Amino acid sequence: MLRVGIYGAAGYAGRELLGILSKHPDTEVAFATSDTHAGKLYADVYPCAMDYRLVASSEAPLEGVDVIFLCTPHGVSAPLAAKALDAGAKCVDLSADLRLKDGAVYAAWYGTHPEPALLGKAVYGLTEIYREQIAEASLVANPGCYPTGVLLALWPLLGAGILADDRIIVDAKSGVSGAGAKPTETTHFVSVHDNLWAYKVGHAHRHVPEIEQELQSYRMLGQPAARALRVVFSPHLLPVSRGILSTIYINVDPSWSEEAIHDLWCQVYAGEPFVQVLDVGRLASLAHVVHTNRCALSIASAGAPGEYVLVAAIDNLVKGASGQAVQNMNIMFGLAETLGLLD
Amino acid sequence: MLRVGIYGAAGYAGRELLGILSKHPDTEVAFATSDTHAGKLYADVYPCAMDYRLVASSEAPLEGVDVIFLCTPHGVSAPLAAKALDAGAKCVDLSADLRLKDGAVYAAWYGTHPEPALLGKAVYGLTEIYREQIAEASLVANPGCYPTGVLLALWPLLGAGILADDRIIVDAKSGVSGAGAKPTETTHFVSVHDNLWAYKVGHAHRHVPEIEQELQSYRMLGQPAARALRVVFSPHLLPVSRGILSTIYINVDPSWSEEAIHDLWCQVYAGEPFVQVLDVGRLASLAHVVHTNRCALSIASAGAPGEYVLVAAIDNLVKGASGQAVQNMNIMFGLAETLGLLD
Amino acid sequence: MLRVGIYGAAGYAGRELLGILSKHPDTEVAFATSDTHAGKLYADVYPCAMDYRLVASSEAPLEGVDVIFLCTPHGVSAPLAAKALDAGAKCVDLSADLRLKDGAVYAAWYGTHPEPALLGKAVYGLTEIYREQIAEASLVANPGCYPTGVLLALWPLLGAGILADDRIIVDAKSGVSGAGAKPTETTHFVSVHDNLWAYKVGHAHRHVPEIEQELQSYRMLGQPAARALRVVFSPHLLPVSRGILSTIYINVDPSWSEEAIHDLWCQVYAGEPFVQVLDVGRLASLAHVVHTNRCALSIASAGAPGEYVLVAAIDNLVKGASGQAVQNMNIMFGLAETLGLLD
Amino acid sequence: MLRVGIYGAAGYAGRELLGILSKHPDTEVAFATSDTHAGKLYADVYPCAMDYRLVASSEAPLEGVDVIFLCTPHGVSAPLAAKALDAGAKCVDLSADLRLKDGAVYAAWYGTHPEPALLGKAVYGLTEIYREQIAEASLVANPGCYPTGVLLALWPLLGAGILADDRIIVDAKSGVSGAGAKPTETTHFVSVHDNLWAYKVGHAHRHVPEIEQELQSYRMLGQPAARALRVVFSPHLLPVSRGILSTIYINVDPSWSEEAIHDLWCQVYAGEPFVQVLDVGRLASLAHVVHTNRCALSIASAGAPGEYVLVAAIDNLVKGASGQAVQNMNIMFGLAETLGLLD
Repeated sequence: MLRVGIYGAAGYAGRELLGILSKHPDTEVAFATSDTHAGKLYADVYPCAMDYRLVASSEAPLEGVDVIFLCTPHGVSAPLAAKALDAGAKCVDLSADLRLKDGAVYAAWYGTHPEPALLGKAVYGLTEIYREQIAEASLVANPGCYPTGVLLALWPLLGAGILADDRIIVDAKSGVSGAGAKPTETTHFVSVHDNLWAYKVGHAHRHVPEIEQELQSYRMLGQPAARALRVVFSPHLLPVSRGILSTIYINVDPSWSEEAIHDLWCQVYAGEPFVQVLDVGRLASLAHVVHTNRCALSIASAGAPGEYVLVAAIDNLVKGASGQAVQNMNIMFGLAETLGLLD
Repeated sequence: MLRVGIYGAAGYAGRELLGILSKHPDTEVAFATSDTHAGKLYADVYPCAMDYRLVASSEAPLEGVDVIFLCTPHGVSAPLAAKALDAGAKCVDLSADLRLKDGAVYAAWYGTHPEPALLGKAVYGLTEIYREQIAEASLVANPGCYPTGVLLALWPLLGAGILADDRIIVDAKSGVSGAGAKPTETTHFVSVHDNLWAYKVGHAHRHVPEIEQELQSYRMLGQPAARALRVVFSPHLLPVSRGILSTIYINVDPSWSEEAIHDLWCQVYAGEPFVQVLDVGRLASLAHVVHTNRCALSIASAGAPGEYVLVAAIDNLVKGASGQAVQNMNIMFGLAETLGLLD
Repeated sequence: MLRVGIYGAAGYAGRELLGILSKHPDTEVAFATSDTHAGKLYADVYPCAMDYRLVASSEAPLEGVDVIFLCTPHGVSAPLAAKALDAGAKCVDLSADLRLKDGAVYAAWYGTHPEPALLGKAVYGLTEIYREQIAEASLVANPGCYPTGVLLALWPLLGAGILADDRIIVDAKSGVSGAGAKPTETTHFVSVHDNLWAYKVGHAHRHVPEIEQELQSYRMLGQPAARALRVVFSPHLLPVSRGILSTIYINVDPSWSEEAIHDLWCQVYAGEPFVQVLDVGRLASLAHVVHTNRCALSIASAGAPGEYVLVAAIDNLVKGASGQAVQNMNIMFGLAETLGLLD
Repeated sequence: MLRVGIYGAAGYAGRELLGILSKHPDTEVAFATSDTHAGKLYADVYPCAMDYRLVASSEAPLEGVDVIFLCTPHGVSAPLAAKALDAGAKCVDLSADLRLKDGAVYAAWYGTHPEPALLGKAVYGLTEIYREQIAEASLVANPGCYPTGVLLALWPLLGAGILADDRIIVDAKSGVSGAGAKPTETTHFVSVHDNLWAYKVGHAHRHVPEIEQELQSYRMLGQPAARALRVVFSPHLLPVSRGILSTIYINVDPSWSEEAIHDLWCQVYAGEPFVQVLDVGRLASLAHVVHTNRCALSIASAGAPGEYVLVAAIDNLVKGASGQAVQNMNIMFGLAETLGLLD
């Protein structure tokens, strides 16, 4: 029975994580923190039946805890990670603090790094790609919600060296839980409902450098001499609570048919419990994946040889956050990867 | 051309009011206040094409203004009403400050009255009932959103003296705009979407004394010796932006059929441009009324002689707030009652 | 490993049931029928990852099946139940065919009974009330979605003999999945979204006789000489996919406080894994129960001694249909009651 | 007072058109047809207060009608247009029958043309671009909903000859009313709600040839030697009732800044009542335009010189259908262009 600690348990990722862990047969929650709601029962914060008692983060009892999950914001997470590692716990950080390898890139997008000693020390927790390193890791940087689906769609193509672009357009659409639980004018029901808007389009969203870091890394495997890949990334806020659909526009060698790319995905992801490659002719939707830890991948022709539209879907709170975090925990502790995660 | 001033223009009622006035042929907006957004263009506060410049309420130029609308909260409105009347303007107050006639009742539900001299001075602005008094009034207390539909449904029955109950159950469901524009945990998209909850049920919502005051007043017309009427009122928050549906359970003299009550409504509301009595067999829905100034009324048998279910629908922002306010303004200034309001 | 057959697997209850069974450790799906989609994979009917192959109901291989679930409409279910029992399988019928004990009542609400020999032979499958009989049963009539929450709220009060009413008002609100998967004008997205309507109000909905049958039965336990109870039932269609909230208006002996009724519920439902009694001061919402097999119960004063508003919430597809069906199956086969059902 | 006839009045475009016309001061409805609902009052088909009596299309009294609107499907519209023109009425066709100039293109996308004699005879009714021809026209082909916003965004850039692409990516998102009023599995509330999917992506949607025809035509003005423009078009179905947001990815001469393109739009659309160019730094949303006849245009950098993301928003039922149809009617009859259309 793993003893698990959760920092930032009253946010949406924390709530989802508690829900997953409550069905996980091999974990028990040692503590769940919330500085805002310290002292309350969980069922007094959200309408649910979970009776965890929230504690202030400063009073979290780290001793004897096997693993901690950081659902805290960037800037707050890395110092907690250092503390947890010192206390002998393994750590999965769901914030952006430890995803970027390059301190200068971190500084450009997020400001001064809160714990420079940990820069580059975490394994990037996109499970399907880094499973072996995750199995050995004490510290995992759980991927961002947007990057997860985009990277799973593109990795096999980059690994095979068939992507012809130096620029990839990603038009992404996310449910509102991705914007966090804090009440703001932009998350007010009346603002979001019956609406759709784009925000931070182009090269402005903080997930851009994360996507580019990883794409470039995969590309180097397939095309060692490659120039830098650039992403044009347009996120949109959808009037749904959860789910991300990413529509990705690519050019590949015209000899690659839809079927060939489909087959490449199937081959790379054979046996993966959480990647669902849809048949050619079907396109991924949010309904394929919400409330599951799966990523659904699909492809269609863009109308000319070598031009394709990829559609990838995940649940931002599960595969895009807490589900993948538990998937990583399972691997870090030698458990069956699907424990607590099958829908 | 009436010169109109609006206090509290950046709330939902204010926004709806500006939208209505921008289509009204005989008004021009003299000022629109918002202390939060003073100095901004309206189109920088909400996604729209209205280019009004918001001013701080303390800098609102009252001179030369014919009428002011108070979209400010209770407690703030009444002193502004006094100020406007002093400046020679007529005034429609959309807050609760001037609806209750009895200072003790106000105190019990809202606390100390901010402008006791105005208590009992305003005409209650339920247009269909008080049209003649409104025509003579300088000060109108616009009804609450929940009371509007409930009172329009019940007034004819009370006037006719056929209601047998001393207690009336009203199960009401409102869209989120009724909760105001302020971001809170309960108005966060993720809280409201896919959800429904009851709140302040029984005898706890501040619209209860307003409904009871009016019902008792109408009842006295039909049944002079009547005992006090009590309302059991259960509001629910719906995952829609606008609209209120009220389901009302009544008992009447068993000699009154559905058709007879339907006919009574039709007779009382003959010629009313904003009351739509549905044929027996049809029930009112939000879709009948949203984005209109209408109230839709309908009736069905509750399964036993004399027992009926009434269903009344309005748009809380239009007939339940800013539309009715303009309807009242039209009457106060001798304009055609439907100006700016026909859908 | 129980071998399970499902008739009507392509409806919403069938889909939910397959989802639950796919997580149930002790079942395997022997067949899943759909006459409309026979021959297709499930993932070609709905966006999901379930790869069951649907078969025509006439070709369902009943031999060797331990239990069948009937997600077929009333009129179709009862003959299939007879066939399944003949083949030696136990049977849980999710339709209305076997819920009403009285053939005359069935005829009045549904027409000629399709399998009169089975009338009165099924145990009514409201698990918390009939658990012992269900354990012995070969044939269970799973309750309707609306009755489930209403009956769980009222049963303890009737059993204790404290309900003073001969008429109970239930104002219920249901998500659209309750209307079935068949596309109609009333289930079109544009009809439902941003809308709310009441339908079949009063004494017109087919769940009325089911509620009355059960209430009367419970009442006889507490108040042997009681007159017939009548329900005034107003269902509304909510713009959500799943969930039912029932607001119930009752009168009890004025000596019973909110706390006393709350305590009665807690006592009656002590140890029940799927009934959540909320603290006084909290009201049930859909968010408490969607995607779970729980029923949440809550109470508030209606403003006068002995008058109360009860609010009960369930997920119509889980506790109101397929979850409770699996709960009953677990009991019928001596399995742990919560298998496959814990959220 | 123009006498107006409407074919196909019970679809969503017809419903919106009737709503607009009911507020138009210079029109009266001569007839409104629906073969499905012939004989019914409009308020018995949709929840509303419009009391038009629907007639079968074969019984529509064309005599004395000044203008007819065809809200009928492609294939049905063109023969009705011929009939109306013969009867001396002007005609606005909201279907696709008369938009494409080239019969071979029509045949490739829609099949045999139902009225070849009218091919190329209609003016394409994108008002801002073809206003002068529309003023002279008897027959106007109202643009498709998706093309309207896309073409208004791109026309000024093509006219100025600054677009560097031969391929333009358009990622579009539409509300469900765009899919029509017919109940289908894909328009069922439960299918759409909480979901998002892409459909007919790439070069498969019937609005592609319409967009390409027009873009190529505008381009020839700015760049006479240009090669054919191709559109990659990915429509998505949003869980909202109305509105289209199109996110468009373009490359222009790097000397053109965001501000320069913004200014070009402002210059081209100066004085246009229904085009709203947002300030640089703001992006168009559905909320800017729903329930209005406006198109909102906005621009952002895609992160490299000359690369931009354009975001265009319209209400598919207003500017994308019935509003623009009335705008065209106003022009065809020499009325003020904004009559009945100002929000």
